[in-house]
Amino acid sequence: MTSSYRAPLRDMRFVIDEWLDAATVWRNVPDWADLDAATAVQILEEAARFVTEQVAPLNSSGDLEGCRFEGGEVTMPAGFRDSYRAYVDGGWPALAISADAGGQGLPQLLEVALHEMLAAANHAWLMSPGLTHGASACLHAHGAQSLKAHYLPKIVSGEWLTTMCLTEPQAGTDLGLLRAKAVPAAEVRSELGDAYRISGNKIFITGGAHDLTDNIVHLVLARLPEAPAGTRGLSLFLVPQWLDDSGSPQRVRNGVHCEGIEKKMGLKASPTCTMRFGDALGWMIGEAHRGLAAMFVMMNAARLQVAMQGVAHAQTAWQRASAYAAERTQMRAITTPADYRGDPAQPAPIALHPAMRRTLLDLRCVVEGERAIGLWIGQWLDIAAHHPDENERAKAERFASLLTPVAKAFFTANGFAAASNALQVFGGYGYIHEYGIEQTVRDSRVSMLYEGTNQIQAIDLLVRKTIGDRGEKLRELLAHILDEAAACSHKETAPAELTRIGHTLEQLCASASQITEELLEQSAADKELPYRVADDYLAMIGWLLLAYAWARTLRIAHATDSAETFYAEKRATARYFFDYRIAEFERCRQLVEAGCRASLPFLSMETLNGN
Amino acid sequence: MTSSYRAPLRDMRFVIDEWLDAATVWRNVPDWADLDAATAVQILEEAARFVTEQVAPLNSSGDLEGCRFEGGEVTMPAGFRDSYRAYVDGGWPALAISADAGGQGLPQLLEVALHEMLAAANHAWLMSPGLTHGASACLHAHGAQSLKAHYLPKIVSGEWLTTMCLTEPQAGTDLGLLRAKAVPAAEVRSELGDAYRISGNKIFITGGAHDLTDNIVHLVLARLPEAPAGTRGLSLFLVPQWLDDSGSPQRVRNGVHCEGIEKKMGLKASPTCTMRFGDALGWMIGEAHRGLAAMFVMMNAARLQVAMQGVAHAQTAWQRASAYAAERTQMRAITTPADYRGDPAQPAPIALHPAMRRTLLDLRCVVEGERAIGLWIGQWLDIAAHHPDENERAKAERFASLLTPVAKAFFTANGFAAASNALQVFGGYGYIHEYGIEQTVRDSRVSMLYEGTNQIQAIDLLVRKTIGDRGEKLRELLAHILDEAAACSHKETAPAELTRIGHTLEQLCASASQITEELLEQSAADKELPYRVADDYLAMIGWLLLAYAWARTLRIAHATDSAETFYAEKRATARYFFDYRIAEFERCRQLVEAGCRASLPFLSMETLNGN
Repeated sequence: MTSSYRAPLRDMRFVIDEWLDAATVWRNVPDWADLDAATAVQILEEAARFVTEQVAPLNSSGDLEGCRFEGGEVTMPAGFRDSYRAYVDGGWPALAISADAGGQGLPQLLEVALHEMLAAANHAWLMSPGLTHGASACLHAHGAQSLKAHYLPKIVSGEWLTTMCLTEPQAGTDLGLLRAKAVPAAEVRSELGDAYRISGNKIFITGGAHDLTDNIVHLVLARLPEAPAGTRGLSLFLVPQWLDDSGSPQRVRNGVHCEGIEKKMGLKASPTCTMRFGDALGWMIGEAHRGLAAMFVMMNAARLQVAMQGVAHAQTAWQRASAYAAERTQMRAITTPADYRGDPAQPAPIALHPAMRRTLLDLRCVVEGERAIGLWIGQWLDIAAHHPDENERAKAERFASLLTPVAKAFFTANGFAAASNALQVFGGYGYIHEYGIEQTVRDSRVSMLYEGTNQIQAIDLLVRKTIGDRGEKLRELLAHILDEAAACSHKETAPAELTRIGHTLEQLCASASQITEELLEQSAADKELPYRVADDYLAMIGWLLLAYAWARTLRIAHATDSAETFYAEKRATARYFFDYRIAEFERCRQLVEAGCRASLPFLSMETLNGN
Repeated sequence: MTSSYRAPLRDMRFVIDEWLDAATVWRNVPDWADLDAATAVQILEEAARFVTEQVAPLNSSGDLEGCRFEGGEVTMPAGFRDSYRAYVDGGWPALAISADAGGQGLPQLLEVALHEMLAAANHAWLMSPGLTHGASACLHAHGAQSLKAHYLPKIVSGEWLTTMCLTEPQAGTDLGLLRAKAVPAAEVRSELGDAYRISGNKIFITGGAHDLTDNIVHLVLARLPEAPAGTRGLSLFLVPQWLDDSGSPQRVRNGVHCEGIEKKMGLKASPTCTMRFGDALGWMIGEAHRGLAAMFVMMNAARLQVAMQGVAHAQTAWQRASAYAAERTQMRAITTPADYRGDPAQPAPIALHPAMRRTLLDLRCVVEGERAIGLWIGQWLDIAAHHPDENERAKAERFASLLTPVAKAFFTANGFAAASNALQVFGGYGYIHEYGIEQTVRDSRVSMLYEGTNQIQAIDLLVRKTIGDRGEKLRELLAHILDEAAACSHKETAPAELTRIGHTLEQLCASASQITEELLEQSAADKELPYRVADDYLAMIGWLLLAYAWARTLRIAHATDSAETFYAEKRATARYFFDYRIAEFERCRQLVEAGCRASLPFLSMETLNGN
């Protein structure tokens, strides 16, 4: 009943090879000069094999079995330990970790694709190793040499897993309210550097306890004595579960306690732990009071991964719904394709019914458009980290910085919506566990919440990244999209529909530009304005990015000599996007404009409390 | 952590007394001549007490415990049997069942409000008695006297519960594919009439087995020998679980077997049964081959109840989110209301943050606007059944017929969206079971699927009810809304904002009229057109209805002398609706227009199957 995962390798190849022309970027990076699209695809094929064979089969069983908490220990669902070992043995954790940190140093772009596959096959499974790259990068960039020598190799290889301990009951979005404490432990002599004793309670700690690895390395935000209040008084500490990690039976346990795991809507196979640190020994990473900056290295890496979870859920939703719609027959068809061989007097596959075709095309618009944008961000990260030209690196940094919050919020909201829309294709069966799609709905919902809620992403985009630089990065993005619009419409030989869509894309840019300038102007006098429209503004930019993705896709699919159905369906989907889905852009723009014109009432506390 | 349910009695009183002016309708009905708004509110207060004390406390525990299936029997969660007995003892099942069928004969309007409360407090609990009114009406209208004499009193009182057995594995939306068989059982002598033997498998049977009542009466669609194929060969049968229902230990069990219950996304406390009928004895209801028409009596009643589940989930979502947002403090406020007494340097209740205010106002727009429309439909049903003037009855029948599919699909889609949006207010806590909102998300999803998927409702609205009568009913609705627009804008003394909103409502009607006429015209030549835009068309009419609801509310809230915050917040919410949410109407209209202009591609079967 549960359709097994199939990696979208054909589409990934299209994006990497044709849409991004990744090899051209790689040629500029000495380490990657030999890398080409064919090699990249081979790596992804191998990844797909691992994901399909080892990870996907545990998706439903992991959801049913869940994690078990007993006596402070967490037991993972059957099969998770073995498949994680295979992941480590295959070298996958280190795929895109930089070579000087001990990784394989392959492009981030490939890891983005790998993370999409893992999340689509089994989101909960990905949660365990999901922080490895970020934690490695954080420790590599900010850790002292002695600490790195001991911990980095085992973290990079995946031999030990890591956590990110930020949230406390009273401090979620507002990290300035964190209370966990760290005091110097002068009595401890350690070759790792000056030790500290960490105390405090942390919640929502993914993988705070599990039986996948022999040690767990927690990265914990806490306050030193007399640290300033707010986020500028937070320092980051490495706190291992086991202190003496020789593996001997006498090894010393640190004061790190898992006090329970949450019962959640989904992600049942990922333990979300309540942690208590009781005078646990730890070592500072980076400078005192600068912990948040160090941890942001992890959080940024995590945000793109979460964005790809949104793509992944949309992909899973598409696969499940399309396969079901092709198989399930109900009611005669209203219209049939030219090559339809069924008996028109008999019930037809529901995939032929117009409402289902709309849903399925909506899913494709989202999943394929977002995949292109997500991998594009991965490419910007690669350019930012590796391009020999400083200006190119800075430009790529700007693009990645602007696009990441959009991708995180927009993709995850669409991933959940895609899952629910796909569920609808199943009719009543969609509500039943064994068809799998209801798990996708439950699992996908979390991505809108963690790594900064989608509302926080929207504020990051509009207040910090757009108003914060007076619109410079945003204008640079619009100029880039306008180049694509020009490429679509200004060629004499361009087919009429490509010209038309190029002009549409130009208009969208003009429209986005106009409302952005208005926001920049009005926000000076109306401080609340950006906060009341941020979510709609982010979604508007999201739809603009999908328009960009589909215009570029259409141009490539028109230029090809290939008669492959793949390209014909890319053209059909692009047309559908600009015929139908484009209405979403205008809705969001109207809501932003509404915010510019109209104030936003307060409801009374009595009403909020139901009195 | 789980906020307890509070019945929205103040708003229900507003709708019944001021928005609907229900008493004026009741004065025209002899049986209700003594009924006034105050009495109606007293009944609802009593209902609210029952719901709050007996039903709401079982919502979370029922979800956790679920139903137990063992040896063909289903055990309901703790507390369900006692609270159901109290429901029967209170006379609630019979509240709005007509007096000549043995009910209390009170207005349907009150039952609609009761069903909203029950669904908001505990959706799964409502599933058990949810079919009582519909089954009573069906049996009363179509059953033979002998059958009614035996079964109707116990069904009406709630002493025995009923099921509706339609769906089979191969036949969901497409009831023409049903295979269950009925053959005359000439050997059986029964005072109930001619007996039949029913055989076949039915799925998704709500309450097919449970321990709430001593007998369960199944209404089953099946085919007589040599019945025509398709839906015109279906007959309806009454099939009791127990044949000799004297209650003696020797009573005879019928050939009705529950073979299992589904593991579902939500509604864990409602058993969804797989039923096998093996030569079960049954008696026909109504004429041979006319079973679907008889069962439609049940399905229509059920559709409005499902619509109110959407309102209920939005209400629950609002209550949970607003209470949490008032209590949870994070980040300083950007702006504060004039009467804010908090320290601006300290973290503020998140209810003050603009993104949360948007969400909370969105929830109110939906829940209060929909409640008015839902109760309005209830009023139309009352007029259709009881008004002394035949023309008034016919008009009310037309309105109810047109509005019911809109309410079913639009309210349930909004109920699920409201639940998810409310979950977002909780941040990470929203994903945790103990905060309750994730259950609301899971429970609310089913209402978009059952009693005809939302796609089927959209086809019913556009193809059957609008194109089917060349737009007559739709034009009558628009004329009714235009009257309200005129009342808002054409009074000389009207405040400026009311005039403005009246004009907006006029424009929405003009816009809806224009696109409807275009659909009527184009659909003649383009048979696929209504099917490709039906969902958007239904949503467009839904937003128009909410605009109608809020314009009328605004007019009433301007006319009042009361200084109650309730009216000030009605005005603020109405303004918010027309400032912001109204963008949804235009989005839907654009999508309908897109469907008029653009064709809809087919994806290949290879692509759908992932090859």
